[in-house]
Amino acid sequence: MSRWFHNGEPADHIEVDERGFQYGDGLFETIAVRNGEPRLWNYHMERLATGCERLKMSVPEQRELRRQLDDAVKDYAPSSSRCLVKLIVSSGVSQRGYGRKTPTDTEVYVGIFESTPVREEYYRDGVETILCETRLALHSVTAGIKTLNRLEQVLARSECVAHSAFEGFTLDADERVICGTMSNVFIVAEKSVTTPSLARCGVEGVMRRHTIATLKENGVAVTVRDVSRAEFLNSDEVFLSNSQFGILPVRRCGEKVWRSSELTKHIMAMMGVAGIAECVV
Amino acid sequence: MSRWFHNGEPADHIEVDERGFQYGDGLFETIAVRNGEPRLWNYHMERLATGCERLKMSVPEQRELRRQLDDAVKDYAPSSSRCLVKLIVSSGVSQRGYGRKTPTDTEVYVGIFESTPVREEYYRDGVETILCETRLALHSVTAGIKTLNRLEQVLARSECVAHSAFEGFTLDADERVICGTMSNVFIVAEKSVTTPSLARCGVEGVMRRHTIATLKENGVAVTVRDVSRAEFLNSDEVFLSNSQFGILPVRRCGEKVWRSSELTKHIMAMMGVAGIAECVV
Repeated sequence: MSRWFHNGEPADHIEVDERGFQYGDGLFETIAVRNGEPRLWNYHMERLATGCERLKMSVPEQRELRRQLDDAVKDYAPSSSRCLVKLIVSSGVSQRGYGRKTPTDTEVYVGIFESTPVREEYYRDGVETILCETRLALHSVTAGIKTLNRLEQVLARSECVAHSAFEGFTLDADERVICGTMSNVFIVAEKSVTTPSLARCGVEGVMRRHTIATLKENGVAVTVRDVSRAEFLNSDEVFLSNSQFGILPVRRCGEKVWRSSELTKHIMAMMGVAGIAECVV
Repeated sequence: MSRWFHNGEPADHIEVDERGFQYGDGLFETIAVRNGEPRLWNYHMERLATGCERLKMSVPEQRELRRQLDDAVKDYAPSSSRCLVKLIVSSGVSQRGYGRKTPTDTEVYVGIFESTPVREEYYRDGVETILCETRLALHSVTAGIKTLNRLEQVLARSECVAHSAFEGFTLDADERVICGTMSNVFIVAEKSVTTPSLARCGVEGVMRRHTIATLKENGVAVTVRDVSRAEFLNSDEVFLSNSQFGILPVRRCGEKVWRSSELTKHIMAMMGVAGIAECVV
């Protein structure tokens, strides 16, 4: 069951001339609420601000966003419980035509959803994944940010649905591994940790950022660089990061099976200490 | 003034959970209605069908789409007059999450708009354009088709708004000229006609297709291939094609001024004979 608010008022409909619908002209954040608090709020707000600058939209007032989120959450979930908030910032209604004066004022939509925990065995044993056929375009003007233009993810995720896979990895058009359809990816090889560069495409997840920061604080370096399909498949361990589930080991990708998750489990324990409680199993 | 219909019923709002809003998960066609008839209807329907296949959505029944369009037009514009129809086909409402079962059933939205003719002097003297800073991503899974993911065009078109330019040309990330923000482009050099390949990005416009076919019928070959920025700027003539205005000469792009539009005018006359009446000035 979900509930939506538009600029703070309950709303289950939007105007058909909304540019978010007509052109995907907007951004979103998917925020985990734990004990009534939006987790990694500052990271979400920083990515949103970066997105607004790139799309030439005014950055919404952060305190006002927080007020709208808090009001929605208070109404929905007791402070002890968890939920998921989808925050959409769009360029609003306009006449027909792609162009708009910049910077553009924004509309705010807050959706609040149930949040079902990922099964404990996934944290323990890892998840089943596939390599998607869908490729990510190169040198996207929206690389790194989280816009409402998500057709690549829709197509890639629909491959996961067809294969009953927990997640699918998307490669870019030059066959580099970039990310999962709803997560970022880390690989472990010879005890060192690498995550793909997102300079040309992909989304910079808040949990990816938190993982890199947490590892650094614990003296573990993370290298951010291009990762080939071969390097990915020949790695010792693979794990996923996502704002909702935190960190999950990958057990399989198509034919490839990873037997180890030793360092991943160590990192999950670090993440538990760093506020991502569900990683501790 | 515009008017919208959803599956044939008047509707000025859509559900907030509509995937067209959440992910840009859909397609559209912008159709010129002249004397009560949708112009280049078959080309619009063929592109839409191609788009549906690429996005793994069911192809809507063409006769039903036509019925909805005709009903909307009849109500809005007397048979002698002109208007513009925006036809949106989306994957509809779903639970949160990118994935969907494929092929997916679709929702149909029909918007009907006034259509103001382009000024006669533009046909006669040509239009002022710019080279946009916004670059198109390479090897897009949506190359050629017209999806609701239009952020590249929003950003490029907003540059035109800022420069008060009639149109802006977008290059791809490798600096090839691809198309205008709302049109396709043709260049004339040594009396031969070339239009950029849209294999990696860009939209295959219905008027581009009609222009290529009309030129062929008149014994004029059109080459479809990659076009560099230098080749574009060193050409003898440049013209635009678009479903609404037909063909327009380009007079200027930034510092570059084209003095000639001799072959373009000849082509405009051919297009007039081929049903695009506004090209005859």
